[in-house]
Amino acid sequence: MKEIPKTTSSILISVIGESKASPTNEKYAEQVGALLAEAGAVVVCGGMTGVMEKVCKGAKSRGGTTIGILPGSNNVDANKWVDYPICTGIGDARNAIVVQAGQAVIAIGGSYGTLSEIGHALSANKRLVGLNTWDLDTNRLNSKHMVICQTAVEAVEAALKF
Amino acid sequence: MKEIPKTTSSILISVIGESKASPTNEKYAEQVGALLAEAGAVVVCGGMTGVMEKVCKGAKSRGGTTIGILPGSNNVDANKWVDYPICTGIGDARNAIVVQAGQAVIAIGGSYGTLSEIGHALSANKRLVGLNTWDLDTNRLNSKHMVICQTAVEAVEAALKF
Amino acid sequence: MKEIPKTTSSILISVIGESKASPTNEKYAEQVGALLAEAGAVVVCGGMTGVMEKVCKGAKSRGGTTIGILPGSNNVDANKWVDYPICTGIGDARNAIVVQAGQAVIAIGGSYGTLSEIGHALSANKRLVGLNTWDLDTNRLNSKHMVICQTAVEAVEAALKF
Amino acid sequence: MKEIPKTTSSILISVIGESKASPTNEKYAEQVGALLAEAGAVVVCGGMTGVMEKVCKGAKSRGGTTIGILPGSNNVDANKWVDYPICTGIGDARNAIVVQAGQAVIAIGGSYGTLSEIGHALSANKRLVGLNTWDLDTNRLNSKHMVICQTAVEAVEAALKF
Repeated sequence: MKEIPKTTSSILISVIGESKASPTNEKYAEQVGALLAEAGAVVVCGGMTGVMEKVCKGAKSRGGTTIGILPGSNNVDANKWVDYPICTGIGDARNAIVVQAGQAVIAIGGSYGTLSEIGHALSANKRLVGLNTWDLDTNRLNSKHMVICQTAVEAVEAALKF
Repeated sequence: MKEIPKTTSSILISVIGESKASPTNEKYAEQVGALLAEAGAVVVCGGMTGVMEKVCKGAKSRGGTTIGILPGSNNVDANKWVDYPICTGIGDARNAIVVQAGQAVIAIGGSYGTLSEIGHALSANKRLVGLNTWDLDTNRLNSKHMVICQTAVEAVEAALKF
Repeated sequence: MKEIPKTTSSILISVIGESKASPTNEKYAEQVGALLAEAGAVVVCGGMTGVMEKVCKGAKSRGGTTIGILPGSNNVDANKWVDYPICTGIGDARNAIVVQAGQAVIAIGGSYGTLSEIGHALSANKRLVGLNTWDLDTNRLNSKHMVICQTAVEAVEAALKF
Repeated sequence: MKEIPKTTSSILISVIGESKASPTNEKYAEQVGALLAEAGAVVVCGGMTGVMEKVCKGAKSRGGTTIGILPGSNNVDANKWVDYPICTGIGDARNAIVVQAGQAVIAIGGSYGTLSEIGHALSANKRLVGLNTWDLDTNRLNSKHMVICQTAVEAVEAALKF
């Protein structure tokens, strides 16, 4: 009788960032997505535009897998490179879930929603990597920190080092 | 130059049910999972034990894909046939998300959490299919209803008919 | 030096029910609100129309206190007898919070959202009282149950007996 | 026949800050709570220790009203100056709700949870006032900002100016 294969646990990495991305951040996002896919990691993101779209596009360019955790209730809101759109219907509170879902978090660029996710990631003791993102107030970071990287390669290496 | 393939949108079907399942409901769950996988649909569930575990096992027996939306913050809580564990950290409020994430919902057996999910599914106007589950008060169902099925085959057919 | 008085812990009772209420259920809701206020209990509800509005109106008719836990982000959505509108922005997932917030739960009439709240209340082991509401499938209630009452007086007495 | 008085809409102000507060921040919190109560505003907070406890204590010292939106499911977790404990059971995702519930937000000191709340407040276009809190990266604030104050009096005035 044939054995049903158990799932070999996937590594999920959350990528957070601005929905209206600068060309630089779009490029970083696409590179990060491609590198995560090459490393066999699954991309989790908010499923919308900007950094979220480009990181999914990058992952799909290397045959990777992408999950989008959406604020609304309609899966057509997902960008076209999201394999699995998870509609939540809970609005911006879904930011906390985007962060919870990853074993590490990479922040690329980012506006206010990204700032909330950085806070949630630090609260939840997630490994947090930053690429051209919020410059955090070092007086308040105590023992925790965000690993600051200069390239997509560095960011993905730092995220997967655990 | 090579085109990056857009995602052909997956059909996600939510399967809800009791965490301590009877042998009958375990069998139904495993059959439903297998049939959904054969039909190319992705299984979404709460990621834990009982019906949730067996539906994932059934899907994996046919090479399907499984997503578990977990109440807690630790992906080791997922059963071993969950491909993509989505930790939410929001406890039972995640029931609303399990339901939102599927294009249709199949209820198998079920206790109180399942009852909450049936309510959320009806509220959200999801196609809802029942297999050996809560007998709903017909005086209150108004125009909405749960399609009652007697076999896993019927349930999967009903869920995918949209 | 004057001592700052500690709060004597309020008893919060969640009242759930349909947003488009029948005259009978509106009357029950108003009576339940009045009786809860007379007993010194605080009314918690979803803050919107129908049963939610009438239970608040009843409570205010006796000088009671009312809290509305709203699905949206705008406090003008609250009915005019809500003292403290709590905007959540999380949509129907707020149903789980309406139930969590009360020490007991009274269901009056009710549609699909109420059904989800009944499920959440049973899951959370809350004392649950029903007045002209969903007739639950007794085969699935196991050891838990909803105390079925015929009058507002009975319902409030049952809710406060803990 | 006597008219039932409609609720004159309360002004709810969210106060966010660290659970292990420095003496300076404890003092600020207590002053802010007292001043909000004197102005007739209701204090909303996370309901726990540190800044959350002291702002409630300050409000109660002037006969004010306090609401604590708790991460867990047990109202005994609320500090003793919370009038209305709202158990949510959704963990840190409740941070988004603490912010949504207020018409303005005052941040006092603060660690990572507070940072997530600052992000949520900016996302939600809430009036945001800071007192000895995170120094935000001005390159990323664009048109939005946090009003930086040096005293509790200034902070409460800024929060109520809308």
